[in-house]
Amino acid sequence: MALYVKKFGGSSVATPEKMLNIANRVLRDRKPGDKIVIVVSAMGDTTDDLLDLASQVSSVNHGREMDMLLATGEQMSIALMAMTFKKLGVPAISLTGPQAGIIAGGAYGKATIDDVKPDRVLRELEEGKIVIVAGFQGLMPNGDVATLGRGGSDATAVALAGAMHADMCEIFTDVDGIYSADPRHVKGCVKMKEITNTEMLEMARLGAGVMQPRSVELGMKYHIPIHVRSTFTDEEGTIIREVCTMDGKNEAVRGVAQDAHAARIAVLGLRNIPGVAYMVFSALAEDNITVDMIVQSVRNSNDDKTDIIFTIEDTDLPDAKRVLEQMRDEGKLEEVIYDDDTAKVSVVGAGMLGTPGVAARMFGALGRAGVNIDIVSTSEISISCLILRKDLDKAVQAIHDEFFPAAKAE
Amino acid sequence: MALYVKKFGGSSVATPEKMLNIANRVLRDRKPGDKIVIVVSAMGDTTDDLLDLASQVSSVNHGREMDMLLATGEQMSIALMAMTFKKLGVPAISLTGPQAGIIAGGAYGKATIDDVKPDRVLRELEEGKIVIVAGFQGLMPNGDVATLGRGGSDATAVALAGAMHADMCEIFTDVDGIYSADPRHVKGCVKMKEITNTEMLEMARLGAGVMQPRSVELGMKYHIPIHVRSTFTDEEGTIIREVCTMDGKNEAVRGVAQDAHAARIAVLGLRNIPGVAYMVFSALAEDNITVDMIVQSVRNSNDDKTDIIFTIEDTDLPDAKRVLEQMRDEGKLEEVIYDDDTAKVSVVGAGMLGTPGVAARMFGALGRAGVNIDIVSTSEISISCLILRKDLDKAVQAIHDEFFPAAKAE
Repeated sequence: MALYVKKFGGSSVATPEKMLNIANRVLRDRKPGDKIVIVVSAMGDTTDDLLDLASQVSSVNHGREMDMLLATGEQMSIALMAMTFKKLGVPAISLTGPQAGIIAGGAYGKATIDDVKPDRVLRELEEGKIVIVAGFQGLMPNGDVATLGRGGSDATAVALAGAMHADMCEIFTDVDGIYSADPRHVKGCVKMKEITNTEMLEMARLGAGVMQPRSVELGMKYHIPIHVRSTFTDEEGTIIREVCTMDGKNEAVRGVAQDAHAARIAVLGLRNIPGVAYMVFSALAEDNITVDMIVQSVRNSNDDKTDIIFTIEDTDLPDAKRVLEQMRDEGKLEEVIYDDDTAKVSVVGAGMLGTPGVAARMFGALGRAGVNIDIVSTSEISISCLILRKDLDKAVQAIHDEFFPAAKAE
Repeated sequence: MALYVKKFGGSSVATPEKMLNIANRVLRDRKPGDKIVIVVSAMGDTTDDLLDLASQVSSVNHGREMDMLLATGEQMSIALMAMTFKKLGVPAISLTGPQAGIIAGGAYGKATIDDVKPDRVLRELEEGKIVIVAGFQGLMPNGDVATLGRGGSDATAVALAGAMHADMCEIFTDVDGIYSADPRHVKGCVKMKEITNTEMLEMARLGAGVMQPRSVELGMKYHIPIHVRSTFTDEEGTIIREVCTMDGKNEAVRGVAQDAHAARIAVLGLRNIPGVAYMVFSALAEDNITVDMIVQSVRNSNDDKTDIIFTIEDTDLPDAKRVLEQMRDEGKLEEVIYDDDTAKVSVVGAGMLGTPGVAARMFGALGRAGVNIDIVSTSEISISCLILRKDLDKAVQAIHDEFFPAAKAE
């Protein structure tokens, strides 16, 4: 007997027929006494259709009213999903995010889950029902519904699982697990049976797209294992948990992440005095520009000028240009050079700290592949290199071949 | 300065463009300081589309889950309507039925409004916002949303107006008021400026379709005048209120109602003993069959048998047949004769009581038109005749011509 929270995304519930497939699968997997909570997203293109309707009204950001509109998408899904179970003769009930006790805070359109009060969910489970909860939405303190932003349905599932001390949160998606690299770009990828929360977070931060970081963080916070697996096959996927128990726990490198959207900025001729880095980065932070890798270099000991090179998301480049060019015009720096043809490749692994030579092996693989390294940055569990974007696929493949030679040979 | 509740039906809000028209009209009519609450239905065919989706899942009656599904229709409307006002630079906020304090009871799919707690609506009005409320839905004691059934959005508007002591509840619809008869069937109909609640209720009960009886009853209960008017013109419509102040208050007959769906049943050869009528009608009531006109006739004083003739809605005929034929098989009555080719024509007017000869004029008009009268029944403010369905249009026109001769001459 166990308590499971299972989340199905929009493509998994796009039609009544697909809902029936899901219901049959859930019932087939259920063991006697199991309690099941299902979190669903809006059906297929529903959210896009609603956004389109709103855009016919006006193009401004509608905040609260947009959330009122978008919340109907998940509400439709849960009602139809509950009907599907009832048609199969299985007691089921649908609950909106607010009814399920998902307490939200922050801004409309990208609210955070501040608390979960799962009383009603637990009561309905006690009565033997399968409980269907609307993902992506929560109750604001003023009684309004708010949407949780990108990856919000995953967050709903993990937070509910945490608040109810579920045995497992299963995220059913269109990929069948977490791989050692992105299978769309790299040959010979290995599906991991397990990965730690911190490794998964680092992978997500460095560009791996399967899970949003905040859902992984919620899993950490609530000590809930998250099983990422395919909607369309019965195969086991990847379990994200605090400590790996099986394969890979002794491997230095667990995965190779890539991010094609890194832009490189070189700020030249800054006065080399304390606080100069603060001056640059606080100005960027004020414009909500997140800075990633940073290198500061002193030209030589007699020079009173310094250079700073850093990376940002390429979508922030226009804003960064505006901020930095104003500083240049004010005489605070001499020159700014922008490159948006750069990319970042990283290796991630919690075992890296205790394993000498990981960086050397990474640099060696890149060198043999003829890839030039521009900037290097490291964390406790990762090493990242900035390279030219045109070299990205070659670089990721070379690094992956270095650390996963068995997969290469297959 | 006044407080208005304005209700717009599904065809009035079918597209973003139509919503813009409504918003512009509301703003044009608004005087400084006016407070406006707008109740809307689901856009155009949305409800039918949702019902169709549900029917793809299963054909059973889904109760709670169907209400969860259908409630999204109005929620979409209110969000888009609020965006429309905001686009025009006017503060507005959308509220679901539960958020607006519509407290529901009874059964899912046809819930009643048991109470209204308009605190939040009043607070938002105080802040200068136009408040958009989802019609057709309310909050059940267990925290669920329920739909109010046919005419539910009208009921939401009237109940809200009542709870907030609004100056007027305006029902915008595709007809421009209440007429002395159904303009689709009768020539020379007169639009009434006013009609009393009791007259309107009687008209609705006897077949006039513009307003559902329960909304009129809510208007009576809360002493709220209801202005029925057209979405598409600026013309005044008809005000339903407790006491008429203007035209028509001295007229004996205010309107002619027609009901083509009356079926006639003659139950012959019942034992003429006390309780025999109870036996027949309680059996029908148990099957939720509503009986309308009733005539009981004793054959002659020496006969111990009696006959009862009554009418029901023709849609209830199969159920009634089943009930009565079982009683016949049990020997409780001798014979049952069914006629589903009958119809009912009625005159309604609160002044009828003090005006002798109304019935005579009605019977005279029917006689001159060559229409045979089968059954007659009367209430304090109405007289109804059962006739053959094929005579219905002729009968209504003749009676209307008799009581509204000026309109005929026009």
